Amino acid sequence: MATEKIDPWSSTQAFDYLRLFEQFGLSHISDELSAKANFHLIRRQVIFAHRDFDLWLKDALEGKPVAVMSGIKPSSEFHLGSKLTADEMIFFQKKFGAHVFYSIADLEAFADNNLSLEESFSFAVSNLADFLALGLDPKKSFVYLQSQEKRVMNMAYIFSKRATPALLTALYGQRNYSLYFAALTQVGDILLPQHRDFGGPKRTLVPVGIDQDPHIRFARDIAFKEKLLAPSAIYHKLMRGLRGEAKMSKRDASSVLSLSDSQEEAKRKLASTLTGGRATAEEQRKLGGQIENCVFYEIMRYHFLLDEHELEKMRQDCVSGAVLCGDCKACYSKKVLEWLAKHQEKKKKMLPLAKKLLKKD
Amino acid sequence: MATEKIDPWSSTQAFDYLRLFEQFGLSHISDELSAKANFHLIRRQVIFAHRDFDLWLKDALEGKPVAVMSGIKPSSEFHLGSKLTADEMIFFQKKFGAHVFYSIADLEAFADNNLSLEESFSFAVSNLADFLALGLDPKKSFVYLQSQEKRVMNMAYIFSKRATPALLTALYGQRNYSLYFAALTQVGDILLPQHRDFGGPKRTLVPVGIDQDPHIRFARDIAFKEKLLAPSAIYHKLMRGLRGEAKMSKRDASSVLSLSDSQEEAKRKLASTLTGGRATAEEQRKLGGQIENCVFYEIMRYHFLLDEHELEKMRQDCVSGAVLCGDCKACYSKKVLEWLAKHQEKKKKMLPLAKKLLKKD
Repeated sequence: MATEKIDPWSSTQAFDYLRLFEQFGLSHISDELSAKANFHLIRRQVIFAHRDFDLWLKDALEGKPVAVMSGIKPSSEFHLGSKLTADEMIFFQKKFGAHVFYSIADLEAFADNNLSLEESFSFAVSNLADFLALGLDPKKSFVYLQSQEKRVMNMAYIFSKRATPALLTALYGQRNYSLYFAALTQVGDILLPQHRDFGGPKRTLVPVGIDQDPHIRFARDIAFKEKLLAPSAIYHKLMRGLRGEAKMSKRDASSVLSLSDSQEEAKRKLASTLTGGRATAEEQRKLGGQIENCVFYEIMRYHFLLDEHELEKMRQDCVSGAVLCGDCKACYSKKVLEWLAKHQEKKKKMLPLAKKLLKKD
Repeated sequence: MATEKIDPWSSTQAFDYLRLFEQFGLSHISDELSAKANFHLIRRQVIFAHRDFDLWLKDALEGKPVAVMSGIKPSSEFHLGSKLTADEMIFFQKKFGAHVFYSIADLEAFADNNLSLEESFSFAVSNLADFLALGLDPKKSFVYLQSQEKRVMNMAYIFSKRATPALLTALYGQRNYSLYFAALTQVGDILLPQHRDFGGPKRTLVPVGIDQDPHIRFARDIAFKEKLLAPSAIYHKLMRGLRGEAKMSKRDASSVLSLSDSQEEAKRKLASTLTGGRATAEEQRKLGGQIENCVFYEIMRYHFLLDEHELEKMRQDCVSGAVLCGDCKACYSKKVLEWLAKHQEKKKKMLPLAKKLLKKD
């Protein structure tokens, strides 16, 4: 049987989500599990699959120490994709007391984007300030620069013994050595919460896009061999680019709404965001909008309409043909722009704290 | 043409030293270069080849900052093999003002020998105390534990981009990923003296056994791509095991004279060390000893008879048949045992300083 590979280094892969369950052993999120978590991103099926999330939640509900971890490459400003992951982490910190681990991958920024550690440091501060403004509790967080955290690299070094050529090829295909090196470093990041300095083995939840699943499987394999707990994961759908591209990509600024965009930039971007409009207004009034194509609706559903009734109203107004795209955008763009202005104000106040938290030794 | 590979992870390879010059581009040490260096280990052809040692010596003689670097895996006590490298480093520090960089590879000890960082730490302290007792000037040295030196791993991470599969296979053959990882870490060690924190690019001399040459070529290749100076190397012959094994191996304690051996142990080991004796005393008196087979002579030549006249007397007494192996050993073993007792006394006094220098942050 031909097997498919998920490629964490390609940002343009389109996924057949259903096939992922069969081929890679992801689990559906049951209604019971969803009810226990009570998270709008799960309810809305933005988060659509998991590995061992039930085990994580069980420990969390029993008051055992649990962690939630993720990371960011500090090569650009926070955009809606980075916000999605941040929102997930903050949710699990607030609602379930999870300790947050956040790896700022400045080495990766150096290797991939040729940013010196100094250049990426200013992005790191800005990214962390965004995270704090979104609601991260720094007292229950361990945020670190990859270049400054010896334990991650030491773990990567030690884990490298476990990374057989067969395993690496099965996970990633035949790739350049540097990609394996980066992957193993990420495994170090993912398993850091279980380092004895942080109290040893514990359930760790990693919220990721489905394209990152090979890293999760790699970390689970190593954890098993190292007698640690296999990390749990929840998978969110990849946000599309504003003009309907398969994935929102940092590399193409105009496909992305950045949390640092000025009001004017954001307004322009939202105005040109793909909708599900029909060929003519008349046709749309008759048939309703094609909401499944609408990136603008996706943005509201992922990020800015947290109330289910409001979201349902937006949907109804669209599919019934009652409100056309222009009016819809005018109304909800205002909401986004207001949120953005407020966020940027909060963020500004967080910059000194972010700098302090990342201060190099 | 079939090409030969040198394997840094095999300790039992026998070398055809002449072929190395042809196939791997090593340079002979000219009489002129030897005269400039004025080093008994070069004069005696223990050090028998080099790469760019002439360039290193030129910079050193012109008073430019130069470095000499090596490392040790802290999984056992110093033996005559580790002493050889240490002697070389101390020589270049004393005579040419080189700054010593010494990597104590505790991560490698963990990965290879399953020694925890705590277990290897006590070997690290003991190894460094030996080094200090041999004459290392700590004020002109940077000694570090691999697990504590972030810059090495950060460099390894960044260099991994340069390590194409073709290069890795050419240098090491198809190997497990962890060996590549360890190799890349060693490249980080070798190029650390050129890190901007240590003043940037400078000539760095690496005294090694010929079996380590793939790491040297790897580091030179990366240095070239990273716009650093290609490190220089001098190559010593591999010391044979006491009973004539191809290489003195830490893994076989009885093949090795350890600097921590008690007088009794050392005496017993020296007594059973291979010599070049003939089948009968009579034959030996007539034909002389086969000194080229004599490991005991090798030990004296590498380590304990620094005066050329004394060494020549030992040789003459042997090849002329004037002194038979028993008498020869009795005489010179005494010298070794005296040296050992004195060294152990000095070392004991160095232990607190060694511990202090390696104190973890």
